[in-house]
Amino acid sequence: MAETHGLVIVNTGNGKGKTTAALGMGFRAWGQGLRVLVIQFIKGNWKYGELKAAEKLAPDFVIRQMGEGFVKHVKSDGTADHQGAAAEALQMARDEITSGKWDMIILDEINYAVKFGLVTVGECLELISLKPAGMHLVMTGRDAREEVIDRADLVTEMREIKHPYKQGIKAQKGVEF
Amino acid sequence: MAETHGLVIVNTGNGKGKTTAALGMGFRAWGQGLRVLVIQFIKGNWKYGELKAAEKLAPDFVIRQMGEGFVKHVKSDGTADHQGAAAEALQMARDEITSGKWDMIILDEINYAVKFGLVTVGECLELISLKPAGMHLVMTGRDAREEVIDRADLVTEMREIKHPYKQGIKAQKGVEF
Repeated sequence: MAETHGLVIVNTGNGKGKTTAALGMGFRAWGQGLRVLVIQFIKGNWKYGELKAAEKLAPDFVIRQMGEGFVKHVKSDGTADHQGAAAEALQMARDEITSGKWDMIILDEINYAVKFGLVTVGECLELISLKPAGMHLVMTGRDAREEVIDRADLVTEMREIKHPYKQGIKAQKGVEF
Repeated sequence: MAETHGLVIVNTGNGKGKTTAALGMGFRAWGQGLRVLVIQFIKGNWKYGELKAAEKLAPDFVIRQMGEGFVKHVKSDGTADHQGAAAEALQMARDEITSGKWDMIILDEINYAVKFGLVTVGECLELISLKPAGMHLVMTGRDAREEVIDRADLVTEMREIKHPYKQGIKAQKGVEF
């Protein structure tokens, strides 16, 4: 067995903290000298706090935003081309996983992309099989498929116990976005 | 209601990701210009990846390590004085919460400290009551008490679905520590 056994990690469930825990893991890994890439499969080109923070940790902590934020992924009727954006994210994931440039890759919301038919479960399993032995691969998003969980080393379900939106409190800058 | 409604956030459960999600939240909040303090209630003075990463974000992202890492918290028989360390962490929490210096304070493993009788649930509730309206207070650790959950706005349970230790894989640098 190699010195570093790269883990396949899945954060799933209906609660908060799936992406946030992955970011925290990336932050910690970066502190240990690992090179960390985040590829977003769903979220658009918003000004997340994490983007600003990631800039400070560049070039060894990089967040690549995919999804509807990309201008070219707009259909002729003007709506967002989620399918095209997901396909591009998927190809980027393949390329980066096999590039040798990263010690940890976080595929953010890929489970959600599978749920919505933008990525197939077979494509997810292909990404896992492409993973070099020493690389950590983190997959987030609710409703992770059983086939993916079967291949993972560490799986955590984030369960919502209580949520402020349901109590009439608005999303808070720095916490929710 | 003020522009910013500071949330009381609890990450609990038996799974991974409670502290990690809190760190990710701190990372994101910092990116939004918030000043973030982490106070550890249990862990010792280890060289966590997050400490190295936090240094990059100083002075507005600070991790204060408490617990057995402090030399003065050793009992006469040479064992760690967990009680003394927790009392010091608690007093630091009181002082920092009321200092006006922070927009988010993460009380890491405080629920665990309560579980082990190092901090009382009444002291936890006191910290919540001291919180300025605009400050976010994050409390992590398994077995959060019902009284604390009642006072929280956002509560997430991290449930372990699968863990690599149980499959004979050692803790991995950058992921587990």
